Amino acid sequence: MNVIDKLIEHFRRFPGIGPRQAKRFVYSLLTSTDAYRKELSALILELKNDIAVCQSCFRFFAVNGNGKNLCAICADPNRDKETLLIVMRDVDLENIEKSHVYRGKYFVLGGGVPILAENPEKNVRTKDLLEIIKKMSALKEIVMAMSLTAEGENTEEYLRSILSPLSSERKIKLSTLGRGLSTGTELEYSDSDTLKNAFKNRS
Amino acid sequence: MNVIDKLIEHFRRFPGIGPRQAKRFVYSLLTSTDAYRKELSALILELKNDIAVCQSCFRFFAVNGNGKNLCAICADPNRDKETLLIVMRDVDLENIEKSHVYRGKYFVLGGGVPILAENPEKNVRTKDLLEIIKKMSALKEIVMAMSLTAEGENTEEYLRSILSPLSSERKIKLSTLGRGLSTGTELEYSDSDTLKNAFKNRS
Amino acid sequence: MNVIDKLIEHFRRFPGIGPRQAKRFVYSLLTSTDAYRKELSALILELKNDIAVCQSCFRFFAVNGNGKNLCAICADPNRDKETLLIVMRDVDLENIEKSHVYRGKYFVLGGGVPILAENPEKNVRTKDLLEIIKKMSALKEIVMAMSLTAEGENTEEYLRSILSPLSSERKIKLSTLGRGLSTGTELEYSDSDTLKNAFKNRS
Amino acid sequence: MNVIDKLIEHFRRFPGIGPRQAKRFVYSLLTSTDAYRKELSALILELKNDIAVCQSCFRFFAVNGNGKNLCAICADPNRDKETLLIVMRDVDLENIEKSHVYRGKYFVLGGGVPILAENPEKNVRTKDLLEIIKKMSALKEIVMAMSLTAEGENTEEYLRSILSPLSSERKIKLSTLGRGLSTGTELEYSDSDTLKNAFKNRS
Repeated sequence: MNVIDKLIEHFRRFPGIGPRQAKRFVYSLLTSTDAYRKELSALILELKNDIAVCQSCFRFFAVNGNGKNLCAICADPNRDKETLLIVMRDVDLENIEKSHVYRGKYFVLGGGVPILAENPEKNVRTKDLLEIIKKMSALKEIVMAMSLTAEGENTEEYLRSILSPLSSERKIKLSTLGRGLSTGTELEYSDSDTLKNAFKNRS
Repeated sequence: MNVIDKLIEHFRRFPGIGPRQAKRFVYSLLTSTDAYRKELSALILELKNDIAVCQSCFRFFAVNGNGKNLCAICADPNRDKETLLIVMRDVDLENIEKSHVYRGKYFVLGGGVPILAENPEKNVRTKDLLEIIKKMSALKEIVMAMSLTAEGENTEEYLRSILSPLSSERKIKLSTLGRGLSTGTELEYSDSDTLKNAFKNRS
Repeated sequence: MNVIDKLIEHFRRFPGIGPRQAKRFVYSLLTSTDAYRKELSALILELKNDIAVCQSCFRFFAVNGNGKNLCAICADPNRDKETLLIVMRDVDLENIEKSHVYRGKYFVLGGGVPILAENPEKNVRTKDLLEIIKKMSALKEIVMAMSLTAEGENTEEYLRSILSPLSSERKIKLSTLGRGLSTGTELEYSDSDTLKNAFKNRS
Repeated sequence: MNVIDKLIEHFRRFPGIGPRQAKRFVYSLLTSTDAYRKELSALILELKNDIAVCQSCFRFFAVNGNGKNLCAICADPNRDKETLLIVMRDVDLENIEKSHVYRGKYFVLGGGVPILAENPEKNVRTKDLLEIIKKMSALKEIVMAMSLTAEGENTEEYLRSILSPLSSERKIKLSTLGRGLSTGTELEYSDSDTLKNAFKNRS
């Protein structure tokens, strides 16, 4: 296998990239400048040097060489310490933060628990989550903020199983995001789960 | 304009049909059997003879020549008379009914109130709605079940304005469908309104 | 089955219409004016009265009560009588005529011959075609203008089998439309048949 | 700008990649193994070391450290030396080669000439093309194999202008790919250029 084929194989592991587009990437690299390729190669190599995992919420953040181990959100003393919102991935946290609806703390699981996973604790940061919760003495509510997909619902079920004892013991409310109509939902085309949730959660 | 062109014009008024598809309809009629065309023509002509508007929920229903003026749902004595669910269109009612989440009474507005409509009462059955509510002595809750679209939200706002006085006076709860994540919603791609509702309505 | 369900069944036979859209058609009719429904019903019934099949090219045309049995194209004395172009459907003829590339005579087969059809002559106007060709004494070329689809290729093969003897006998050229790159074709994404034709037919 | 943002910027230059997908690429790298990132970084850096431009057809090929300067096609003594097929890009050559319709020599322009380009010779390998043609003493035909797009047609026009004198002088046939119906083309929906070409190139 030559370097073109090897590179195609590597790009195919990028999310959503098939063999045809992977090949296009390689050809675009072949016609790009030496400077661009050198920079890209260096950035990929350095990526983990300059990026750390926040020791509180566990999302990735740029350390900027100042030795910090907390991201900007976790380092902010004004965030509400009574609520912890758990998401599956960094991008979920980013989208929620962008919407300005939440001012508490976060925790990033680093993934979801697939249906039928034999060892769920290998898919998500279970141990880190439990330790963080132990340290949050003012905690009053944990929001499980999962996508309403099969993976998300399975992850929520797993979280509920490991957080329930702790929730009872410390009197911490365990909540999930509200369900019902989302922007653009038309009743004519809604599935019965959405209608059921929308009716049950009417107000 | 010949009969083909006239028929194309008529089919173009069907929802979602452009000139090209309207023409295809006409050509398919030209090659169909005489029997099929006669039946289709007769069914269109008879449509309103055999279909009545239910005098309770105002949806269309087949009378079957028995002189009834109530649809099967409204004629069912076992439906809960304490709740009235208002929808914009017949298809919304049908989809909710199919989901088996609701066992009360319905009212079909016959459309929605467009943004900036000058006379909203001309777009929806305001007068009929108020009369029906007057007759429902056991009524405890009115659910405004609108799609989460611009038209739906505007219609809800209009309904709220005409139903609020009556709701206060007779102590009838005025509710709307719950909002939040609907089936398939991924946090990464959600708009901020959906995230706001999902967070606000967490439970 | 009530009239609504019957009408839904009838609209489902329209090309490209599924049950959901058929139902939307019926509801849109229910809320349309009586006048519109009466006109639509009448137009469908009259369709075949005002429309005749041209006795030369066999396409549908509006007779306008003048007792003519030839469409405007076939009645035009200036069309080239040495060439006959055979298409599967009226819409093919219309699109070719709109492009102004052809000035000869047409023949509409009224459909295509499906793969594995047991009696091809039942799908297309074989007898009429042979009679028309017999009458065209000046004929020098027959163009088989089929879509480049499985049905089109099968129809062409069938036509070739029934026209070949006649073509040899009367020295009439039997041709098919050129094949190769069509507008927008990108070499990177072309299938090998297209590339083969494009290379073979280079000029 | 931190390393994540820099890397997003770099991935955005990949063909067809927007900011959202570029970000997904970066997060997928953050969660990939160190080994994978090191390999990817090294492959990008080495890409041009192991890949050479063929000195005959000018496409990219893997040299495999054997010091060759001809790709496998150009090194093959059995290819027909009387025909030269010119394509815009490597992927076009690959797709034609995969279809097994052509057994002659190739030349890759390295791009197309955009409409209104002021210096067309800067977009394509004009000088190399002319030198290669000069060396091909047995050459009898040059096939200009461009996509049937605005860029492709403009490139063909440019090629014709620079190759015509040479073609006349050396009696080399200058041809283009055939035009007409391509696989799947339906007459009903064809544009008039395609119909015109299909009719003109009938056979």
